[in-house]
Amino acid sequence: MFKDNEKQASGYRVPLNKALDSLRYNEAGLVPAIARQHDSGEVLMMAWMNRAAIEETLSSGQVCYYSRSRAGLWRKGESSGQIQKLVSLRIDCDGDTLLLDVDQTGPACHTGRRDCFYWRVDGTDVELDKATLISPDQLYGKK
Amino acid sequence: MFKDNEKQASGYRVPLNKALDSLRYNEAGLVPAIARQHDSGEVLMMAWMNRAAIEETLSSGQVCYYSRSRAGLWRKGESSGQIQKLVSLRIDCDGDTLLLDVDQTGPACHTGRRDCFYWRVDGTDVELDKATLISPDQLYGKK
Repeated sequence: MFKDNEKQASGYRVPLNKALDSLRYNEAGLVPAIARQHDSGEVLMMAWMNRAAIEETLSSGQVCYYSRSRAGLWRKGESSGQIQKLVSLRIDCDGDTLLLDVDQTGPACHTGRRDCFYWRVDGTDVELDKATLISPDQLYGKK
Repeated sequence: MFKDNEKQASGYRVPLNKALDSLRYNEAGLVPAIARQHDSGEVLMMAWMNRAAIEETLSSGQVCYYSRSRAGLWRKGESSGQIQKLVSLRIDCDGDTLLLDVDQTGPACHTGRRDCFYWRVDGTDVELDKATLISPDQLYGKK
């Protein structure tokens, strides 16, 4: 579907079901999903979705990933309260990556930082360059 | 390394080699890399890197991915001329995803569009909502 229609003009439409059938899920049935704060352009995190997670996200308007470690749907914020409200969901040219524009409440990262990308290469080191907004203990109700 | 140091304060540093050794490469030796236009926040594309691609990108200052279809290093722009100049390279909390801030010349997408995320879910359809900047034929020298 994606390759076949890449020369279509802006405005071309395909049924959602057909697009979701045509996604190039990996051998575990997952596609990577990048979450970006819709207004600031901050890239918050990258996680994985299966078809059920995509469908739940679209129907509920709240982002649901697939947790590879827990092998099940992961309703972002279910334990921390830090939910992601879906603004838009996009699919890339190859149909193998999703881009979610979201409105993130508080920190996206389990460490209590706003986003997960807090190690920056600096010469021959990497530097941790972002502070926590909330401690993980507070985030997960151990306060 | 990443898990062990997630409670460190901002400013904490680790040798780059140690960080690259600790990346959680997948079974093919790859990590996903998200490319973002450094000043506008546009998410341009997602591709894959192995350790050699990361090292070449850092030493040359020009982004080099690993092409899964061609099974080799993919110096972005080598056939299209549309290079990505590296502004910064970040690693996420789990050490399994990279975020590249780049300065992209022209279109990032092989279709001639600025970025790869041109299919947007709209109700029960997906809509192609971005026009090409350059035709693919021009991009790949068939003009």
